[in-house]
Amino acid sequence: MSAHEPATPYLRVDVARARSNIERTARWATAAGISLRPHAKTHKSPEIARLQLEAGAVGLTVATIGEAEVFVEHGAEDVFIAYPLWLTPDAVRRLRDLAERADLAIGVDSVESAERAARLLEGAGIVALVEVDSGQHRTGVAPDDAGALAAAAAEAGLSIRGVFTFPGHSYSPEARMSAAEDEALALRTATGSLRAVGLEPDVLSGASTPSLAHTRTADLTEARPGVYVFGDAQQWELGATDPTDIALTCQATVVSHGGGRLVLDAGSKALGADRAAYATGWGRLLDHPDARVVQLSEHHAVVDLAGAPLPALGTRVAVVPNHVCAAVNLTDTLWAELDGRLEPWPVAARGRNS
Amino acid sequence: MSAHEPATPYLRVDVARARSNIERTARWATAAGISLRPHAKTHKSPEIARLQLEAGAVGLTVATIGEAEVFVEHGAEDVFIAYPLWLTPDAVRRLRDLAERADLAIGVDSVESAERAARLLEGAGIVALVEVDSGQHRTGVAPDDAGALAAAAAEAGLSIRGVFTFPGHSYSPEARMSAAEDEALALRTATGSLRAVGLEPDVLSGASTPSLAHTRTADLTEARPGVYVFGDAQQWELGATDPTDIALTCQATVVSHGGGRLVLDAGSKALGADRAAYATGWGRLLDHPDARVVQLSEHHAVVDLAGAPLPALGTRVAVVPNHVCAAVNLTDTLWAELDGRLEPWPVAARGRNS
Repeated sequence: MSAHEPATPYLRVDVARARSNIERTARWATAAGISLRPHAKTHKSPEIARLQLEAGAVGLTVATIGEAEVFVEHGAEDVFIAYPLWLTPDAVRRLRDLAERADLAIGVDSVESAERAARLLEGAGIVALVEVDSGQHRTGVAPDDAGALAAAAAEAGLSIRGVFTFPGHSYSPEARMSAAEDEALALRTATGSLRAVGLEPDVLSGASTPSLAHTRTADLTEARPGVYVFGDAQQWELGATDPTDIALTCQATVVSHGGGRLVLDAGSKALGADRAAYATGWGRLLDHPDARVVQLSEHHAVVDLAGAPLPALGTRVAVVPNHVCAAVNLTDTLWAELDGRLEPWPVAARGRNS
Repeated sequence: MSAHEPATPYLRVDVARARSNIERTARWATAAGISLRPHAKTHKSPEIARLQLEAGAVGLTVATIGEAEVFVEHGAEDVFIAYPLWLTPDAVRRLRDLAERADLAIGVDSVESAERAARLLEGAGIVALVEVDSGQHRTGVAPDDAGALAAAAAEAGLSIRGVFTFPGHSYSPEARMSAAEDEALALRTATGSLRAVGLEPDVLSGASTPSLAHTRTADLTEARPGVYVFGDAQQWELGATDPTDIALTCQATVVSHGGGRLVLDAGSKALGADRAAYATGWGRLLDHPDARVVQLSEHHAVVDLAGAPLPALGTRVAVVPNHVCAAVNLTDTLWAELDGRLEPWPVAARGRNS
């Protein structure tokens, strides 16, 4: 390890594990005959994006124009902003700038926003995908309505490349397989709905890390998982990631034994405060599978070690955040562990929420 | 409003309200005859710190050495790091540097860390406060044990200025008053424990925003609230902040009506993912008291408007984050609304977790 290990708490990436996760998922996509377009919101890192593209990803998925700007600045040539953007004049200017440097696609989920995009982005060469709701009930139209939206968009002059969905209801121990089935049905239904108005989708895009293993790849042309690159405590608890594949941890120090408790200096400002309904705590310890973070404040994690002896004050401990996308977004630097040395990798798109 | 309103989501500070909150709490401390040392982890902003110090605060509280560095760099002369630091060589170097420029105090909650601080900080002029647990059960020794710890610290050569506690169990609708009573009892008990070993505490420091109105000021010499400057949805739901005093909102845009839902572009990467057990959602809308954020992902908030008509796509909406400290820590800029104009205020200590 480097002589200059950073002060805790900091995020450490096991690059060998991350690379292994990236390559395994790339092989899965190749074997299934579909494209991989990883969601870069998870890592926000040009270095990780480069590993994904080198492993065969066709492009990147992002959530915001700001993320797209960062990755195009770092060489991405094909970016999908998987979000139903509301186009302000400033957003239009930024999208037009981006489209001069990269292939760009955006999401639409209403006739109003599609017609607005057609008008404001005319001639920019930006295409759109219709978002359908496959069961998460967040954004997206009903699959049956995809054709009407696509027809209205095309009529207004917006080029519709296909359909996308996010089966986010896969974030539940019972629903990983059924969410993948819902996704497949939604994409088939949307395809039929487009064909009924004379449109043929080139892209049918979906997938999520929890449902990835169950994805009905015959019904997709493209997968957009994000978390798979690192894994996290949520994926561990969902059974979607083996702990031996978890590639990112928050390195923390034991600062207190107050009241016989184990208290670490990694709080919600380092780990994030995410705690899904199925989560058994606010985070886990990589080397203590039975331990749980049972109390979390901004700069403290109180850990129940399930009876194991307390590590001494000053001991370094590797915490697995519940939701790695949130943890990464809290820091400007990932410390990449490569051949026993630590190298700073900028979280270049951190905080680019718009 | 400025012609160049930032892209949503962004955090807006109503400076008149923040100033009113700062002045009201300063008057409360003055009337009670105690000092105010606001916790700067909430705002991480030199501009807000300046307003607090101008209103009579005796100094600042911070959680980390990094926060102390930022505020001393911006002129703070008296800083308390209210945290049981574990002193690495790097931490020692940074603390010694800081102590040359400001009055500095740190927290201790074990004999081992106190003796370590005595040895490593010898001659630096840094004082310590003993942390006691008044009921939150996070860090801190039992109040009865404060004297033994203080005696060991003094014996080792560490100057003990007094005792501090954080009644964090006040974050519960039923416990605001009882947590203040627990705090007072803990500080009285700790005082007795110090006197029993021949030590007289100069500082008895406590308070939290939810329990502030119930603080037994006769038992304290100093209060360290943080959230009071802005308020948030937690304080609103706890009854500790009136919505008309909430001084920070996340400005968001309506991006989707998918499935008849109201979806905003402010997700957990703008609001934070905090959701306490007593919270009724992942955030609230300032102008719709009955509305709740019922589903939150990284870039989406799904809002239940309790039957009110959906605002049109593109409408700007003011969201009140559940936990304002977490929301502030996600952005590099607060947009301060002053006389109808927006001015960028840097969140200079954002991400300074160590």
